[in-house]
Amino acid sequence: MTDLREQALEYHAQPVPGKISIALTKPAETQHDLALAYSPGVAEPVREIAANPDEAFRYTNKGNLVAVITNGTAILGLGNLGPLASKPVMEGKALLFKRFANIDSIDIEVKHRTPEEFIDTVANIADTFGGINLEDIRAPECFEIEKQLIERCQVPVFHDDQHGTAIVTAAGMLNALEIQGKALCDSTIVCLGAGAAAIACMELLIKCGAMREKIYMLDRKGVIHTRREDLNEYKKLFANNTDKRTLQEVIVDADVFVGVSGPDLLSAEDVQLMADKPVIFACSNPDPEIKPELARQARPDVIMGTGRSDYPNQVNNVLCFPFIFRGALDVRARAINDAMKVAAVEALRQLAKEPVPEAVLQAYGATEMRFGPDYVLPKPVDSRLLPRIAKAVALAAIESGVAGIDTLPEDYLADAE
Amino acid sequence: MTDLREQALEYHAQPVPGKISIALTKPAETQHDLALAYSPGVAEPVREIAANPDEAFRYTNKGNLVAVITNGTAILGLGNLGPLASKPVMEGKALLFKRFANIDSIDIEVKHRTPEEFIDTVANIADTFGGINLEDIRAPECFEIEKQLIERCQVPVFHDDQHGTAIVTAAGMLNALEIQGKALCDSTIVCLGAGAAAIACMELLIKCGAMREKIYMLDRKGVIHTRREDLNEYKKLFANNTDKRTLQEVIVDADVFVGVSGPDLLSAEDVQLMADKPVIFACSNPDPEIKPELARQARPDVIMGTGRSDYPNQVNNVLCFPFIFRGALDVRARAINDAMKVAAVEALRQLAKEPVPEAVLQAYGATEMRFGPDYVLPKPVDSRLLPRIAKAVALAAIESGVAGIDTLPEDYLADAE
Repeated sequence: MTDLREQALEYHAQPVPGKISIALTKPAETQHDLALAYSPGVAEPVREIAANPDEAFRYTNKGNLVAVITNGTAILGLGNLGPLASKPVMEGKALLFKRFANIDSIDIEVKHRTPEEFIDTVANIADTFGGINLEDIRAPECFEIEKQLIERCQVPVFHDDQHGTAIVTAAGMLNALEIQGKALCDSTIVCLGAGAAAIACMELLIKCGAMREKIYMLDRKGVIHTRREDLNEYKKLFANNTDKRTLQEVIVDADVFVGVSGPDLLSAEDVQLMADKPVIFACSNPDPEIKPELARQARPDVIMGTGRSDYPNQVNNVLCFPFIFRGALDVRARAINDAMKVAAVEALRQLAKEPVPEAVLQAYGATEMRFGPDYVLPKPVDSRLLPRIAKAVALAAIESGVAGIDTLPEDYLADAE
Repeated sequence: MTDLREQALEYHAQPVPGKISIALTKPAETQHDLALAYSPGVAEPVREIAANPDEAFRYTNKGNLVAVITNGTAILGLGNLGPLASKPVMEGKALLFKRFANIDSIDIEVKHRTPEEFIDTVANIADTFGGINLEDIRAPECFEIEKQLIERCQVPVFHDDQHGTAIVTAAGMLNALEIQGKALCDSTIVCLGAGAAAIACMELLIKCGAMREKIYMLDRKGVIHTRREDLNEYKKLFANNTDKRTLQEVIVDADVFVGVSGPDLLSAEDVQLMADKPVIFACSNPDPEIKPELARQARPDVIMGTGRSDYPNQVNNVLCFPFIFRGALDVRARAINDAMKVAAVEALRQLAKEPVPEAVLQAYGATEMRFGPDYVLPKPVDSRLLPRIAKAVALAAIESGVAGIDTLPEDYLADAE
């Protein structure tokens, strides 16, 4: 870890501080160039946009620009370290947007006194961008913040910690259950953790067919049940009418375990109590709720996913967020709605079932990789993610009526396929 | 103009919309790269910044990042067209920052209900950046907005329409008066216009030696005098205890005319009424208060400046703002104070007195260019602007106690000189 620490600090500091910069997309050398880029020529696109706001997509970078916005209250696994300290993470997210989907992205760190002030601040600057990716905002404030911003902004607002995680989890989970021969609607699900990601995951699983009453969610105090009086409105939606109070009670005969909590909270004994052919997604990072080798030892029939790149079935947000924004931007979507999220789930599921390209095998030094217990999700280096997810999302946006254009160009993202 | 219109729209629309994009400054190809740029490696710089906020300058792009922020209430000469329509101008400003001083700059357009809401919004996002360039905000709100933001932000806040204009005007004016053999403190000054630029210009001229009681400022209603009861607190500072009421009255025997108003408001007859060897800076753009050829005809002894690049002595903000921010950023300045502004004025003045480099002559197709009535300010293409102004400003910041570092590196901007 010392090695990683030194390398990471060096990477961020040299040869220039940080990870992203501004580049010019137009010539800016001659007097003539500058007369077009700035005064007097710039008055022309200004007039066009004043007459028709949609022209901002034609004459400015808005249509390819996503703000990564945070208040630093839930930074990675580090907690609330404030806005400024979160800047390397947000710049990193911007880097991922560019790297994976050629989206221009800038980080904005917001300090604020009340959640309302955060909402006002983001809503006031939102028109600058084609979309807003909320990041590392703690629960439960993140729910109300996202809800109000979706109402107030004309551009998509997407809290990736919630929905990116949920989409990738749902895709992997549906594929894993298919392999195990189980239906989501019949599955008993234990969700350890009740934060933003946990709640969003369970909500999306329900949209994909899971039964709310078969979900047992646990927070630090144990099972969330109907007799508890300490629940916020978001947890309350998952209050189960049960007498069970502990993980050890609810894990008995569970088909699915989703962990978005902390390291080593699920034991080999717990795993042995689960139903046949269980699915375990232990997403705590970097240390999962149970190590895959331990789970496999306890139950050879398990399908296991984690948040780590060095185990099979990595549940990684980067499988989704660059591409869902790519699709949304490309049709000038005003929102990222449930139809678009479900379309992303389906595109991800489908891609995992197709033959793996040679380039992906090479990147992982693998001779074979195919749909099965150790491959329920595509790999982040898979170049098909961009066209497949973006196109599915763009079409869903058009069909569900939140797009600003009516049809996709015929050659839309065709080359990359 | 049709030609310029079509060219400007084409320039903004093709091959991609807008003028700026995001570039990565670090490798982001391999799994290892991404493990440093994002999870898990990114946690290391986060921890460093949480422990010491100054480390943000080491590990993030903050130290080279300037936000160009507006509410679109005073766009160029176009007026209040709202935030979104101003986006091409703000992107253009970002382009100029990059082109002239390699500063990474991003535009932020803010919608708001009250000035307080604008101030809160900007203050809340300010820590993201190393500096804030306010742009195209109408008077008189701009004064209170800037004042409060300077108080609330830990980074420099600089309203370029005010201070950039003022610095370049002051430098050119002092040089022009020197050539005319006049002292600023003895000069009678007529300022046509009482907006943000006008008031900032006059305030800076006073700091450079002009006498407040020798300044006659005029707004749409005529001379600003002590018996008027319609003056805001900013105009009130320039209320002159005089019986004169019109431009034609105050222009008699005036040494200096500064126009920041509108086209053709100064006549040849007005110019003939001025004192010997007058100085006229007619900065209305694109059409000045009086055309240079007309003024010259009326008074062969005039020294004339305009806002236009096709006449001598262009009063152009780009002579200042990229470089004053360069100097401020390079010493992590917490503000751009009067000492730094005056240092920029002096550096600009001095540079105009030095021999003009061959590259500048070539750019203008000129065989000769030297300090004199037709050359009181350097040209924007002069590569010495960056090192000269930035170094003067950086040193002034250190000496006046607003810098975050104590000394300039020995080789600071030495190469470019």
